[in-house]
Amino acid sequence: MSGRVGNLMSVRDDIKVFDVTLRDGGLCNDFRFNDEFVSALYKANLESGVDYMEFGYKSSRKLFRESDFGKWKFCKEEDIRAAIGEHKDPMMKISVMADVGRCDYKTDFVKKEDSYVDMVRVACYIHQIPAAVEMIEHLHGLGYETTCNIMAVSQANTNQIEAALEMIGASSADVIYLVDSYGSFYPESVMELARLYMDTANKNGKRAGFHAHNNQNLAFANTIETLSYGVSYLDCSAMGMGRGAGNCATELLLGFLKNPRYSLYGVLEFIEKYMLPLKASGIKWGYDLQYLFTGQLNRHPREAINFTAEGRKDYCEFYKSLLENY
Amino acid sequence: MSGRVGNLMSVRDDIKVFDVTLRDGGLCNDFRFNDEFVSALYKANLESGVDYMEFGYKSSRKLFRESDFGKWKFCKEEDIRAAIGEHKDPMMKISVMADVGRCDYKTDFVKKEDSYVDMVRVACYIHQIPAAVEMIEHLHGLGYETTCNIMAVSQANTNQIEAALEMIGASSADVIYLVDSYGSFYPESVMELARLYMDTANKNGKRAGFHAHNNQNLAFANTIETLSYGVSYLDCSAMGMGRGAGNCATELLLGFLKNPRYSLYGVLEFIEKYMLPLKASGIKWGYDLQYLFTGQLNRHPREAINFTAEGRKDYCEFYKSLLENY
Repeated sequence: MSGRVGNLMSVRDDIKVFDVTLRDGGLCNDFRFNDEFVSALYKANLESGVDYMEFGYKSSRKLFRESDFGKWKFCKEEDIRAAIGEHKDPMMKISVMADVGRCDYKTDFVKKEDSYVDMVRVACYIHQIPAAVEMIEHLHGLGYETTCNIMAVSQANTNQIEAALEMIGASSADVIYLVDSYGSFYPESVMELARLYMDTANKNGKRAGFHAHNNQNLAFANTIETLSYGVSYLDCSAMGMGRGAGNCATELLLGFLKNPRYSLYGVLEFIEKYMLPLKASGIKWGYDLQYLFTGQLNRHPREAINFTAEGRKDYCEFYKSLLENY
Repeated sequence: MSGRVGNLMSVRDDIKVFDVTLRDGGLCNDFRFNDEFVSALYKANLESGVDYMEFGYKSSRKLFRESDFGKWKFCKEEDIRAAIGEHKDPMMKISVMADVGRCDYKTDFVKKEDSYVDMVRVACYIHQIPAAVEMIEHLHGLGYETTCNIMAVSQANTNQIEAALEMIGASSADVIYLVDSYGSFYPESVMELARLYMDTANKNGKRAGFHAHNNQNLAFANTIETLSYGVSYLDCSAMGMGRGAGNCATELLLGFLKNPRYSLYGVLEFIEKYMLPLKASGIKWGYDLQYLFTGQLNRHPREAINFTAEGRKDYCEFYKSLLENY
């Protein structure tokens, strides 16, 4: 199986720092980021050397009403253009995510050459892999870089995962993403999966990526553990903004990487000017006990998100209710 | 060198969960915990299966004025007795810490058989190892279990560390503690040191321990990484309370361990009833950007602690000031 790649001092050109602040963070505020915020994030990411910036989801406007959400749930071309200005900087690529079964990929994507988007990340549960592969082939045909992000694999068994990896390995996907949806993995467990994903990636000339959640305060640790085994697309977000306990913080990851391409200060200025006020305005994310519980129990965080939204502090009662429904 | 010991499902009887809430947490409030808090923590730790509880420091009353601090900076026998009641439960041992050069160990420790204390942890910087060994021999002679906690090894080189380990290996210390004083270690770096410490421990019939700081949100991750390489004494504190960015949270560690001896609920009740009000009262600790900076730069957290105490939020200015004095 795949082993460690490089060491703590290595510069690896395969590494891609992948900002998901708008996309996963958008799940905390229904994607209602104002234009100044998005433009400032774009500039900050460029200054810090971030490789990809994900603007949000490409969601079905048949399934979701546009007036119920901010614009980054739909990522229209004209909205991206307005946010980044006329000039798209070639130093950073733009990504959107599309969920299997929740997008109209056949009608909503133009050809890559007519789009601001470079990469489409296809997210699916493990039983949806055939549908994901169909989407990937369509989007690949339009000229986009594509990924397959298999969610919730902490509840799948190894046989299923191996079968899924074989199908993705045979597809046109450029990157295979390991996703810790429930924040339930430890470095030792995520390392085993990372090696499995890397085997498939290496065999098929692809890359692997990792998307962490911080339920057990392990998002950054798990990210650099998978990195050390050759995973190269590393999701992160400013101040870890993301659903529930949030993601790996960009500022932690940038400080760890040794490549002089990356620097902390751009993102740091953005955090001070935009993220702190956002947090102070009452938008909620980040590690807390309720997320630790669902992570430890390997469960979807929805009950913990509700607990948070209701402003509850009766952690013991909440913990007992989780055990009752185990 | 020493390799991994067991796997994620293993029950290892050498593991000791070591609560340092009063001792490292005491650095946040000058050890001013009230009696009810201390008694409740004692009961909660017992209920959760914690193996050792550290009550505080045994500090010199010549160097430090008693009226300037709460009682747990001095840990008098009568104060411990008052906190735990007449009955000392044999299921959990009691520890105190003594810093080389800041205690009067020749006069302030009675014989073990006349004390509530089971273990004395001797903390020192690497150049103080000879003084630490002298203290360890004295305390061992009185009948105590002893440890040597070498602080700030992230600023020492491997030759120094090996020389220090050899001296401690030849001493009567029962446990050799790896300490990440500045929260600057990554799992890969702390793993290398853990293996070095384990080699010395194994060669000399001793155990190794680990004390984390959470500057880079890695306290828990680093703790379970060292654990996987055979380290068995694992420091933690309720809600991670400890100086600066704090320590490994007891609730994270208890949820990870598979030994049915441990359970989360006792500590969880304590957190809800005592730690949340303590935090709400304004006592400050825990991960924040200023600690990330000093951790990344491998520096003492004192400037970050001052930044926090002053209620500052100008992270960019603070970061620049650190770089100026690099």
